[in-house]
Order: sequence, then C-alpha cells, then structure tokens
Amino acid sequence: MFLLESHLSAGPFHFKLAAHDGRARAGIFHTPHGDLLTPVFAPVGTQGTVKGVTPAQLSELGASLVLANTYHLYLRPGEKRVSDMGGLHRFMGWQGPILTDSGGFQVFSLADMRKVDEEGATFKSHIDGSLHRITPTKAIQIQEDLGADIIMTFDECAPPYDRSYTESALRRTQAWAESCLSAHTRTDQALFGIVQGGVFPDLRERAAKWISALGFPGYAIGGLSVGETKHEMNSMLEVVNSILPEDCPRYLMGVGSPEDLVNAIGLGVDIFDCVLPTRLARHQEAMTLTGRLKLMNAIFANDPRPIDESCTCYTCQTFTRTYLRHLIIAREMLAGTLLSIHNLFTLIRLTGMARQAVIEGRFSDFALRFKESYT
Amino acid sequence: MFLLESHLSAGPFHFKLAAHDGRARAGIFHTPHGDLLTPVFAPVGTQGTVKGVTPAQLSELGASLVLANTYHLYLRPGEKRVSDMGGLHRFMGWQGPILTDSGGFQVFSLADMRKVDEEGATFKSHIDGSLHRITPTKAIQIQEDLGADIIMTFDECAPPYDRSYTESALRRTQAWAESCLSAHTRTDQALFGIVQGGVFPDLRERAAKWISALGFPGYAIGGLSVGETKHEMNSMLEVVNSILPEDCPRYLMGVGSPEDLVNAIGLGVDIFDCVLPTRLARHQEAMTLTGRLKLMNAIFANDPRPIDESCTCYTCQTFTRTYLRHLIIAREMLAGTLLSIHNLFTLIRLTGMARQAVIEGRFSDFALRFKESYT
Repeated sequence: MFLLESHLSAGPFHFKLAAHDGRARAGIFHTPHGDLLTPVFAPVGTQGTVKGVTPAQLSELGASLVLANTYHLYLRPGEKRVSDMGGLHRFMGWQGPILTDSGGFQVFSLADMRKVDEEGATFKSHIDGSLHRITPTKAIQIQEDLGADIIMTFDECAPPYDRSYTESALRRTQAWAESCLSAHTRTDQALFGIVQGGVFPDLRERAAKWISALGFPGYAIGGLSVGETKHEMNSMLEVVNSILPEDCPRYLMGVGSPEDLVNAIGLGVDIFDCVLPTRLARHQEAMTLTGRLKLMNAIFANDPRPIDESCTCYTCQTFTRTYLRHLIIAREMLAGTLLSIHNLFTLIRLTGMARQAVIEGRFSDFALRFKESYT
Repeated sequence: MFLLESHLSAGPFHFKLAAHDGRARAGIFHTPHGDLLTPVFAPVGTQGTVKGVTPAQLSELGASLVLANTYHLYLRPGEKRVSDMGGLHRFMGWQGPILTDSGGFQVFSLADMRKVDEEGATFKSHIDGSLHRITPTKAIQIQEDLGADIIMTFDECAPPYDRSYTESALRRTQAWAESCLSAHTRTDQALFGIVQGGVFPDLRERAAKWISALGFPGYAIGGLSVGETKHEMNSMLEVVNSILPEDCPRYLMGVGSPEDLVNAIGLGVDIFDCVLPTRLARHQEAMTLTGRLKLMNAIFANDPRPIDESCTCYTCQTFTRTYLRHLIIAREMLAGTLLSIHNLFTLIRLTGMARQAVIEGRFSDFALRFKESYT
C-alpha cells in the first residue's frame, strides 16, 4: 500500500490513490460536484432518469455518480434544451457527479441504421428515423452543453472478434480522441480517453499506449462485456491496466454483474456503470451478494424475510418477499422501484466492501470468499 | 367556534373537534397508529400500495391516512396472507393510520358478474373469474384480518336515480350494518357505519337517522360522486350532516377533486379519499390549486418553472415542467411517480389550508377565494 497523487489533475479534478492491494485500488476522485470514493458503481440514467428511482432515493441508497447517455439526450430532449434548463445536474435533479458517455456505443449499436467514415458517423434516430451526424467535435459540443463532470471521447466500438475491422476502428478512435481533446474547452469537465481493441492483446496494448500518451485525466476501457469470454475480458484488462497510468482513474464501461465487478476491481478498475441492476429489477429479479432471486417464483408467496437479510437498503428494511411478489403479481409499478433500490444498493454496497478490503489489505481474501459464496 | 369531544370513542379512538366555522370543522382523530388532523385527505393504495409512491415518500409528502381496498386484498394476496405477514401496516410498510373500505363498492361495480341477496353478495373475481361470496360477517372478518385502524360496514351502493332499488338496497345496507356491528370484535379498529340513499333526501335522512342510532364511532357517506349533479351531492351532504352526530368524524367516500373537497369541507365533512390524484398523474395531468395542467402539452416543452410555483413538494422543489414533459414523452415511469407526489401533496396541502382557515374562523372567505381562482 502506498500513496500516489495525480499530476494530470485538470482544474477541479484530482485523483488520489489511497491504497493498493495487489492490483486492486482504493482512491478518491474529486469532481466539481463531489468526491467519488473508488471503486465506485454508477447507476445508469439513460434518458436523464434512473428508471423508477428519484434522485432523493439515489442519494439515500448511497449512489455518488450517475451516468447519462449522450445519444439519448441529444435526440430527446436535445442538449440545447438541457443547457437552457441550467445543465444536466439541474435538469435531472441530481447534484452529485454525473458521467456522460460519448454516444459512440449507441450509434455503433444501430447496425443497419448507421454509416461510419473517417470523420464521424451518420445514423438514423431510433425514435423517428431522422438523419443525424456525430463527429468527435459534435460529441464534445453535446457533452459540453449537457455539462456532466466526466465526459468521454467519441469512440468506435467494433465487433470484438473482427481483427481487421477492429484495426481500422482503432485508427479512427485514436484520431477522434485527438480531435476531442482539441475540441474540449470546459475546465469543469474531465475528458476521459477510451481504450478499444477488441479481444486482441497487441491492439489493446497499442491503444492503451497511444491513448495514455495523450495525457487524459482518466481512462475508459470500452468494448468489453460485449460477447467475449470472461477469460478474454480478464486478459484485456490485464494488458490495458498494466499500461494505463497508475495515477488516473480507470473506468470499465457497461460492467456489470457482481462477479464482473469483483473481478475487475482485482485487476485495477476504479469506475463502473451498468443497466443490469435496474433492468433486472424491472424483470422481477433481485440481486444479492450470493446470487439472484426471481421474485415471481411461487416459493416466495409466503416468505416473511426481506430479499437479503444482511441488507440495509430501504426495500429490505421495510418489505417482505411476500409483499414484493404480491406487487409483481398485481403488476404494481412500485415493484420496479423497490427492486431497483435494492439492486443498486447491492452493487454500491459491494464496491464499498471491496474498497474497505483494499484499504485493509485483504482484497484477495475478500474476492475469494465472494466467489465461493456467489452462484 | 367551540369544543366538542366524542363520547362514543371506542378504546384507542377519540375524536376531538377543535373548531367550527359555519358547518366546516377542524378536528383531531386519535387512532392506534397516530393522530389524524381533520379535514384529511387519504391517498388510495388499492392493492396495498399507492401506485408508484413508496411509504417513505408518502410520509414525506405529508400523508397521514392511507386507504386500501378490501375487495382487492381479499382476492390477492388474500387477507390471511396479509395477516400472516403481521397485518396490513407491516405488509405495506405504512406505519400510520390505514382505512379499509368494506368491499361493497367494488362488488357492486362488477355489474353482470355479481348477484345480491338479503344476506350478502356473490360475485366473480375480476382477476380469474372464480366465484366468491361476501356477507357482512365475512367483510368484517376480512377487515379484521387485514387490521386497518378504520374499517367499514358492508353496504350496497345502488344506482343513484333508481328510487325503488335504492329503497331495497338501503334496507339491506341497514340490516348489514347491524350484522357488521355484532361481528366486529377488535377494539383497536374503529368500525364506521355508512349512509346510503342515492339522491333522495328522505331516504338519506332515514338512513342517517337509522345508522346514527346504532352508535358508530364514525360515519361514512357513500354513493356520492357516482354520477349525480353537484347540486344533488350538496343537498345530500346537507341532509346527512345535519343528522350525523357532531362529535364523530364524517368520511365522504371516493371524493375527490379540489373543488369537491372545499365544498364538502364547507358542509361538514372530515375525511376524504380518492384515486384521482394518482390516476391523473399516470395520465400526465398535474393538479394545482388553480386548475389542472396537461404536461404533455407542447407549451411546456421549454418551461423552466415547476408545476406550481407556490408548491413545496419534492417534485416542484426539484424539477421543471420541461423535465417532467421530457419524462412523459420518453415514457419514463418516474413521470407517474413525480406527478403522483405532487398531486397528492396538493390535495393534502389543500385540506391543511382549509383546516387552518376553519381554526382561524375565515373558512367561507377561503372557500370563496378558492372557487374564484379555480378553473
């Protein structure tokens, strides 16, 4: 365990690494809207709302960072409207730190509805089919108008196993990273570079070196958890994290599940986001530190226990499994809200436990015990 | 203004009339789960949840009394299951006072799916078509198992303009009130008698006298706001409230709108419930003290104001009309929650303002100014 302080902190941003344990890290990332204790899990508020959960409930369940999607907010209500309302924090009523992605992932998920060239991507809106174009400069302009604390360079997330396509996508992603860096003007936003490269260690290595050399205040790792194996994800994280500067936060985009979180923390990741907890909640699944419960199941019809007896979230402190199942069967919208509160709390609790284990120098034991009890 | 204390208070129940102003009243109704400051508006939690609003949010928005529906909870999850979970308060996570209706209104709303006889009603479940029978004794047993603080006698709500049917329904309702009174055993529940009688002053008078003579700790007025004119509703309230004992709370079932609330408070009503605020919320309408706003309307697309600039609810303190409209357009479930919070707060705020006006002896001025500004 040792201390490292970032020399790359830009203006109000400052990353302080409080402890190491193996490759796992515990840090503090200062942002204009508050401090993030890392590792940290960010609930996803795609359209400027974490589905079914108020900002007050997010605060109460311990969320510190919230993610919003640039692609969605650009299309609706439009970044200028958000800016007119005083920016994303005021718009969505969340006064803590916010992270926006660059829109790249969504645009490149549109498959037949988009076309990429060296300068950017042209695509059709999933809402009304209207034609749009996002370039690196445009992605930064949108994100500056939205006003999140942490913003992302525009990147291309290629199919993970197509080497030749991944190589050309990587060239674009690297060129776009430079364009984003030049276009970025707001000093109250930290622009993160993104490392792509599919499942190819040499491409990941090249990307990590190249992006690191640009000197961003933080780095995202993209294009993982998109269909590759766990072994491949781990290999890529090992390669990338051995190159990214120690004194900057590392953000693994779109991950994830409790097991992926513990695993990636062990490989040196600091920041996570994922729709999984709220999506599972809307599909009646509760997450726990030992596995998932499908609450629709008849075995819960007469079960006076909370979802998780070790959990201190509002849902577990207040409601039985019987009640939650009743809400599900009766198609009550409160079911989605209460399960979202619990699932988000569970991942935030897990990152907090991991952080404590790192600080106390017992992370590998913590991770081992977690993996043994998780099914 | 003068003080009156109930001599009919049963066990832990006690109604104290703090002030009169004309026929309008301000009181305190003590229940085992807390005091109700009357006039009071109760949010409706049909299936054991106020749709989209947690009990914590209900507390925060100032709700003191919550209604749940006996018919729905009897069918699903069943009153025994609720009782197994420790009763309705623990089941739904609401520690304040709860009121259950008798199931009568829902059963008699089933039209072709139910048959009434002198001893009760046989009906088919709206969920699965299964056959059920509720008698006065059964209605009390279910409500004792549920365990609300305030429970209702089993009554028949007849079509308001059919005199001969209303007469026969009234005979049954009166006989059933006696049966309910004999069947009721729990002293920690206040059983209210219900006055029916359609739009016929003489029937309402007869019913009010007959039910009052049975000496209930409180009285409900049923069969209003079911299609009759405002003039007819007012006439019925005048007749009934001139007969019901002054020292007992009066509950106007299923009402209502801001204008109906102010009107009925002026005619001596103390307790209200209605699905209107949460139902309107799910249909994108916001209630204010001066009228309704359809938030889907394009005029709100770029409006940085809260729903109501005079409102101190969480929604108005946190979000713009633009944001709420965005949630609606984006079909986000948070829209229903935030509008429910605001609409419920508005009716609870209105009853609180009316109470204060009664206490300060300026209710008629308050009611006049309200009516002038409400459209």
